[in-house]
Amino acid sequence: MLPLLCFCHRYDLLSLYFLLQSCPATQPSMLNVHLVPHTHDDVGWLKTVDQYYYGDRNDIQHAGVQYILDSVLEQLLADPTRRFIYVETAFFFRWWRQQDSATRKAVTMLVNEGRLEFVNGGWCMSDEATTHYSAVIDQMTLGLRFLNDTFGACGRPRVAWHIDPFGHAREHASMFAQMGYDGFFFGRLDYQDKARRIRDKDMEMVWRASESLTPPTADLFTGVLPNGYNPPAGFCWDQSCNDPPIRDDPNLEDYNVDNVVKRFIEIANDQAKMYRTNHIIMTMGSDFQYENANLWYKNMDKLIRYVNAKVRSKVNVLYSTPSCYLQGLHQANLTWSVKMDDFFPYADGPHDFWTGYFTSRPALKRYERLSNSLLQVCNQLEVLGGPNSRKGPYGEGDSDTLQEAMSVAQHHDAVSGTEKQHVANDYAKRLARGWAHCETLVSNALATLSSWEAPREYCLSLNISVCPATENSYKFFLTVYNPLSRMVSWPVRLPVNGSDYMVLQPHGQVLDSQVSLIMAASSIMVSHCYAIKRSVRIFVSSLLKGTQEVGFQPGLIQPFFFVPQFIRVTFDPDTGLMNSLTNLETKQKIQLMQNFYWYNASDGNSADSNQPSGAYIFRPNSSTPIIVSQTAKTYTLKNSVVQEVQQEFSPWVSQVVRLYWGSRELELEWTVGPIPVEDSLGKEVITRLDTNINSSGYFYTDSNGREMLERRKDFRPTWDLKQSEPVAGNYYPINSRIYIKDKVNQLTAVTDRSQGASSLQDGSLEIMLHRRLLYDDVRGVGEPLSEPGDDNKGLVVRGRLLLALTPPKDAADIHRPLAEALVLEPLLAFQTGELHPNTILEFSGLQASLPPAVHLLTLSQWDQESVLLRLEHQFQVTESPTNSQPVTVNLKKLFSTLEVVGVSEMNLSANQWKDEMNRFDWKTSGGEQCPPRRLGDTSPWEITLKPMEIQTFLLRVRQR
Amino acid sequence: MLPLLCFCHRYDLLSLYFLLQSCPATQPSMLNVHLVPHTHDDVGWLKTVDQYYYGDRNDIQHAGVQYILDSVLEQLLADPTRRFIYVETAFFFRWWRQQDSATRKAVTMLVNEGRLEFVNGGWCMSDEATTHYSAVIDQMTLGLRFLNDTFGACGRPRVAWHIDPFGHAREHASMFAQMGYDGFFFGRLDYQDKARRIRDKDMEMVWRASESLTPPTADLFTGVLPNGYNPPAGFCWDQSCNDPPIRDDPNLEDYNVDNVVKRFIEIANDQAKMYRTNHIIMTMGSDFQYENANLWYKNMDKLIRYVNAKVRSKVNVLYSTPSCYLQGLHQANLTWSVKMDDFFPYADGPHDFWTGYFTSRPALKRYERLSNSLLQVCNQLEVLGGPNSRKGPYGEGDSDTLQEAMSVAQHHDAVSGTEKQHVANDYAKRLARGWAHCETLVSNALATLSSWEAPREYCLSLNISVCPATENSYKFFLTVYNPLSRMVSWPVRLPVNGSDYMVLQPHGQVLDSQVSLIMAASSIMVSHCYAIKRSVRIFVSSLLKGTQEVGFQPGLIQPFFFVPQFIRVTFDPDTGLMNSLTNLETKQKIQLMQNFYWYNASDGNSADSNQPSGAYIFRPNSSTPIIVSQTAKTYTLKNSVVQEVQQEFSPWVSQVVRLYWGSRELELEWTVGPIPVEDSLGKEVITRLDTNINSSGYFYTDSNGREMLERRKDFRPTWDLKQSEPVAGNYYPINSRIYIKDKVNQLTAVTDRSQGASSLQDGSLEIMLHRRLLYDDVRGVGEPLSEPGDDNKGLVVRGRLLLALTPPKDAADIHRPLAEALVLEPLLAFQTGELHPNTILEFSGLQASLPPAVHLLTLSQWDQESVLLRLEHQFQVTESPTNSQPVTVNLKKLFSTLEVVGVSEMNLSANQWKDEMNRFDWKTSGGEQCPPRRLGDTSPWEITLKPMEIQTFLLRVRQR
Repeated sequence: MLPLLCFCHRYDLLSLYFLLQSCPATQPSMLNVHLVPHTHDDVGWLKTVDQYYYGDRNDIQHAGVQYILDSVLEQLLADPTRRFIYVETAFFFRWWRQQDSATRKAVTMLVNEGRLEFVNGGWCMSDEATTHYSAVIDQMTLGLRFLNDTFGACGRPRVAWHIDPFGHAREHASMFAQMGYDGFFFGRLDYQDKARRIRDKDMEMVWRASESLTPPTADLFTGVLPNGYNPPAGFCWDQSCNDPPIRDDPNLEDYNVDNVVKRFIEIANDQAKMYRTNHIIMTMGSDFQYENANLWYKNMDKLIRYVNAKVRSKVNVLYSTPSCYLQGLHQANLTWSVKMDDFFPYADGPHDFWTGYFTSRPALKRYERLSNSLLQVCNQLEVLGGPNSRKGPYGEGDSDTLQEAMSVAQHHDAVSGTEKQHVANDYAKRLARGWAHCETLVSNALATLSSWEAPREYCLSLNISVCPATENSYKFFLTVYNPLSRMVSWPVRLPVNGSDYMVLQPHGQVLDSQVSLIMAASSIMVSHCYAIKRSVRIFVSSLLKGTQEVGFQPGLIQPFFFVPQFIRVTFDPDTGLMNSLTNLETKQKIQLMQNFYWYNASDGNSADSNQPSGAYIFRPNSSTPIIVSQTAKTYTLKNSVVQEVQQEFSPWVSQVVRLYWGSRELELEWTVGPIPVEDSLGKEVITRLDTNINSSGYFYTDSNGREMLERRKDFRPTWDLKQSEPVAGNYYPINSRIYIKDKVNQLTAVTDRSQGASSLQDGSLEIMLHRRLLYDDVRGVGEPLSEPGDDNKGLVVRGRLLLALTPPKDAADIHRPLAEALVLEPLLAFQTGELHPNTILEFSGLQASLPPAVHLLTLSQWDQESVLLRLEHQFQVTESPTNSQPVTVNLKKLFSTLEVVGVSEMNLSANQWKDEMNRFDWKTSGGEQCPPRRLGDTSPWEITLKPMEIQTFLLRVRQR
Repeated sequence: MLPLLCFCHRYDLLSLYFLLQSCPATQPSMLNVHLVPHTHDDVGWLKTVDQYYYGDRNDIQHAGVQYILDSVLEQLLADPTRRFIYVETAFFFRWWRQQDSATRKAVTMLVNEGRLEFVNGGWCMSDEATTHYSAVIDQMTLGLRFLNDTFGACGRPRVAWHIDPFGHAREHASMFAQMGYDGFFFGRLDYQDKARRIRDKDMEMVWRASESLTPPTADLFTGVLPNGYNPPAGFCWDQSCNDPPIRDDPNLEDYNVDNVVKRFIEIANDQAKMYRTNHIIMTMGSDFQYENANLWYKNMDKLIRYVNAKVRSKVNVLYSTPSCYLQGLHQANLTWSVKMDDFFPYADGPHDFWTGYFTSRPALKRYERLSNSLLQVCNQLEVLGGPNSRKGPYGEGDSDTLQEAMSVAQHHDAVSGTEKQHVANDYAKRLARGWAHCETLVSNALATLSSWEAPREYCLSLNISVCPATENSYKFFLTVYNPLSRMVSWPVRLPVNGSDYMVLQPHGQVLDSQVSLIMAASSIMVSHCYAIKRSVRIFVSSLLKGTQEVGFQPGLIQPFFFVPQFIRVTFDPDTGLMNSLTNLETKQKIQLMQNFYWYNASDGNSADSNQPSGAYIFRPNSSTPIIVSQTAKTYTLKNSVVQEVQQEFSPWVSQVVRLYWGSRELELEWTVGPIPVEDSLGKEVITRLDTNINSSGYFYTDSNGREMLERRKDFRPTWDLKQSEPVAGNYYPINSRIYIKDKVNQLTAVTDRSQGASSLQDGSLEIMLHRRLLYDDVRGVGEPLSEPGDDNKGLVVRGRLLLALTPPKDAADIHRPLAEALVLEPLLAFQTGELHPNTILEFSGLQASLPPAVHLLTLSQWDQESVLLRLEHQFQVTESPTNSQPVTVNLKKLFSTLEVVGVSEMNLSANQWKDEMNRFDWKTSGGEQCPPRRLGDTSPWEITLKPMEIQTFLLRVRQR
């Protein structure tokens, strides 16, 4: 990492020479138009990522990224003034792997000279509404690491670039700031917001993206691009466009240079009116453009030549990049407005709210979330198991495959659910292949840690009670791996063959367990057996073993059954519906009616607008949802570990309301589907919780699973909203939780995947669970969102909501660990046969539990000698009297089997040493900024985390 | 011209070294698959030629030739094994003009090394059905000269390449042979013919293209390409195709190398079964492909690598060119079948006869033919007027603009009428601009020759009796320039203002003339004045002045009126229709009924086929045409110079039957349009001549205006025809004439433009005059052929047929000079004011008339010192007892004002010295071939022309 050896742009004063080398000269007394040649390459959408890479299935969409990179390389080499930016490392990586050394050398030269600039640089351009911060950080790390390893500092992107995602999350901005980006540009924001910003010349601002982190830690200069991410009208010269080329041969027909120059100068001057400096940016590219870069460059060369020849116009056009444009803005030394909220929801018209994709493809969204959990387990066990984990008795395993699949899945047409069906299938297939590779790795690691190499099986269909290992064996062994940095209680339910099982803990103690035989509540669940006894031997491998009780949930990892002592739920005997929820500890009680409804999706035939609901857009035909059933048939179960009320609302909606003994949260396990559409009505199914909480129009949703944002019905903090969609226009993404509160009560719902949610009435919370639609919503995907499911009857989806009723001040102490445990689940592995006598039955990777505020976000192998560690303070600055405090962790004392021999702090994305981070500083109208101060750590190994802080370390380790 | 200095391929034994340099090695024991990367770039079709060049209007069709050449150049430079061929010099010339010297050097290197090979190389790929040989030779000469001047011998195409034209004319093959091509490939032939040839392995043959020229002068090796001009199914890798790319990265999804290799080997082996050698050709390209050549080459590189790696397959794939493929065929040393007829009409299905375009856009076809006449006048006067003609008192003029416009107009979607309307407009506009440039040149030349510089006007609308110069002046001067090499009588009709005109000849003699005032026969012709007297002074400038009578038409240029002494026509007084024609000299008389009919164009809704009539396809709904009217209203005119019967058949069909005194042919001047389509019926209007000639199913049509071909109803000479379209399947193109005959009578119709014609009943001749259709015929043009005309009411078209009734043996003596005079019309120029006293009133460029058999085909300025001369024997070998004899011309004694100081004979296209022509010789099954022997010329200046021979000379000349 020797940035002074290359010619890439550096912004600090000491390297002014290098800066001049790479950014083209601008004219102080003219309007500088920064042309930014770029391509936007979706990591899957209408085609799979590999189809896009190769240019396969061009019948669906003409796009071939291999050719884009081939072509741009040639065009850049042809003229040193040309510039190009590249964004998606998932594609660049595929291409780079196939290049010969001469090509690689040429590319490196272009990168070093700033002619090819990487921007954003993650594996993909992640979705912002439906992603979890953990997976986003991982995917960014994967992409940026490749660039760093390949090109060094010159390959490090300085600008974040989310030109296409459909709304922008504050947590993303916070992450980008902590990753060291100097600025951020995007293309999509609410049309009313944009109009206001244009009017007020407020298109560029500083986004203060955290309420907890000290500015400017999470401050990010943010610019709204003028034309989405497209070129100005009439100036698209890609092969996919039909704008007229510049015809400058007077011997041929239709010489048009004068007209082109005139139009361009007009457009530039008009655009300059919306922005504050004498620099403006034009995005010269779009989706999968530059497959034949010659078309673009040949015409832009002419444009630059002919416009600049017209000196009196005072317009200076130049090839540029976002970072060079940002440099121009920075040098203007203005004071910028401060943005505190986020950019959700996104609407591009009065009836066009992009709030449907918050829920679209709920099964894929869940699979992605589960895969993140497995990936973290896999990463941790790769570290703890040592080199044997990658090549061991079960063969060769790796975490890379799942890491890549997860990084692909973060794309804004992947987990978002806005891809074509076959592409959704491909994302799932990639995840499944990643699982297989991880399972081998995990088996190897567990074999190493347990010294027992009997075959291990993983039951991936436990959610539908399928597990051959347990169903076919009278005796089996269960290994549970807990990836959290503290003990957790987790119910284990297994399908078994018989009713007489005994569960033994590692040292032989019998664990309370129950076998139940229960008829399915829904038509899909033919047999729904709650597995328990006969002979189940449990191994406990985890980051932490031990007996002390930590946090709110007492005890060792205890797979089953606690005494229900904290919550009471009541049901109306006439309707079968819940009618109250009580917290027995705090003596709080609220009325709680819960039921299932569906919005009738607009088919596009209305007087207001022809916008139908689709994969992106949520547009109900009426603001009043239709109730699935006024009553539910109920079945109850009660034993020593669990109480359940099964509710059957219709053949396609059912629910289990479940309360484990000793649990402080109520579980609602819903099953929805196949959504019937024989009536030709698209349906968007919600569950709604109606309480007597006096929420006054406010509700609260998380941002990418981390900080909470206040929402208010029919209101936006930064402009005077004209609400035109009373339901869809109030929907927000939730990634982990939503709550409403009044002074006394807070009802928090923690969810198992990303969803859309709202509160449309005081005291009410609604969450969209599943959608089945009959029309495409005309945003490009070209398919109605109607997932086929088994036999094409429509997809059945099952999920969980965990409800907690608390006083507001204690809520975070419940929902933070609850959400943490839901995101990182224990891994279950099964073995049969006879136990090897030397088997190690318990293992803990950590020396001790970490404090409740500390989340072990990342533990993964970096290279042979070092591991990447991220520790996170998982509480916001004011949300918990006890936990919203700085906490200290000693890195030396972290691991039980690894000795930490060196530590280096890095930026969040681990592509820069923390002490080399040197971001642009921006003057803001939001008051003075304090430079972040490090707390005086007592030793180099002791690190202190403040609320919502994530610290990233590269640790050199040795096996003890 | 030093071919040994370059590395292009030469086929003679002495340069084997160079041959090996450029053609890739083949494998004698394997099947060699010659991949020929190519692009087919229409010189206008859906877009204008310049729109295609620039890539403008990509909304109509994605195509930009500038980018194709840019891209191919880069890809060829990247790998020396790659090959490309380029065809259309109209585009290459545009591109070359814009390149810098480094690019030009690189291209020259590629050409010299045979990596870029020019094929065909004319300005365009001419249409074969609707072009006149004169214009085809000119356009080929223009393109080939550019290649010769730019690249020398290495740029000379060795292969003719007409992959797209819709049927193939024998005269084209004859011309290509005489231009020195070694072989010819095309893509389209009748589907039954193709099936027969595949069955009989007769896809490649020797075409003996003249009945008059001694073999192998007009022999041309001819190959039918296997897939039209497209790649085999599944192997199109252009950006415009959707075939899957080769996916050879095992790390990505959908690795398909094995499958691709297997499919390719199957296809190659299947194709080899249709051909006779162990070489096969695959055309890897199509319309406007290779705009992003990387897609093609990257995948073909892989194809070659992976197929050739499979050695056991015995398939060797290589980059190649048509000439390298031809070399492989030649080396096979086989004996080939001989083809004697032509490839008309073309059908690609039982109801899909491409015989509509023979007539489509009749006004454009006429304008193109008239433009050829003007171009020849312009060329001649550029030579005769000397340097002053290009820059003189009227400004700067040139013949190049019209030459280029005419060369563009020969394209197979130009004069063919198969382009979009806006493109047809562009062709006409280019011709009009060429006319303007030529008019300036002609004015300069006439000023030089006459020593009078008063302004000259040209009345281009005389066909609708509009001429301001004559209408507004009581006294005006008329210059008549006759471009023929002999005297001709030509009627001049001018609109005038008054009735009392006197016409004076150069030396003051009064010429008989008449002023007539005649009401319009059609609704369009409001005033139809036959111009004569008051004071018209005629100047005679011509190739030839003098008083001797030559040929069949006595006298000096006599613009008006002769005594009708040779023909009698009779009309039925009840119907107003002709009913007999008599030749008074020979005492022949036939019954002759003539009328107008229309075929109801198929709308595509029939049980047999959904093919409608369109720009290409002629498909009548019924074989019985609908009569326009059983009777005609008639008006008669008779004066000392002309007798006329005007016939009005309907508001949109009229005709003037006209007989000049002293004329041996009867003129039928038809006016058709606007064709009404308010009845929603498309109409294809014909005139039909029904006689009692016993033609026995035979009729005769010209090939590109030269040699005649025998046609027979429902019959093809080379296969057993299954006739499925009794009308359209018997249509043939006529460019200048058609005749039927029996032992006694021959009725010949000479026409003024290219048309479709047939003889469907014995004694009957029909000619399609005009078409207006309501449906597109699904061959790509995407528009119904419905020419808008003035005010979008539909186009009115006027034209002439000249009828001659003769004994068969004398027919050519009439129709050859008649057609010659119709092709090269006198030019009329008008002046007003007072005559300058020193004005030279007569000029002749030739010393004397040439013999009747000799046509002066070309006289044009080549460079400062030399002129290009083509002399043609215009009779076939047996068609005239007197004229079908060798004739001798002394080049020294040709010109009156130019001294010929040197002469070099060239090939027909003037891109090679005649004595350096060294074509492949091919063994044929058609009997022995005599090498052409030169007649023992008596002096180097005396040249002897045999029937149908064209000799081409470069003459060094000096002004006397």
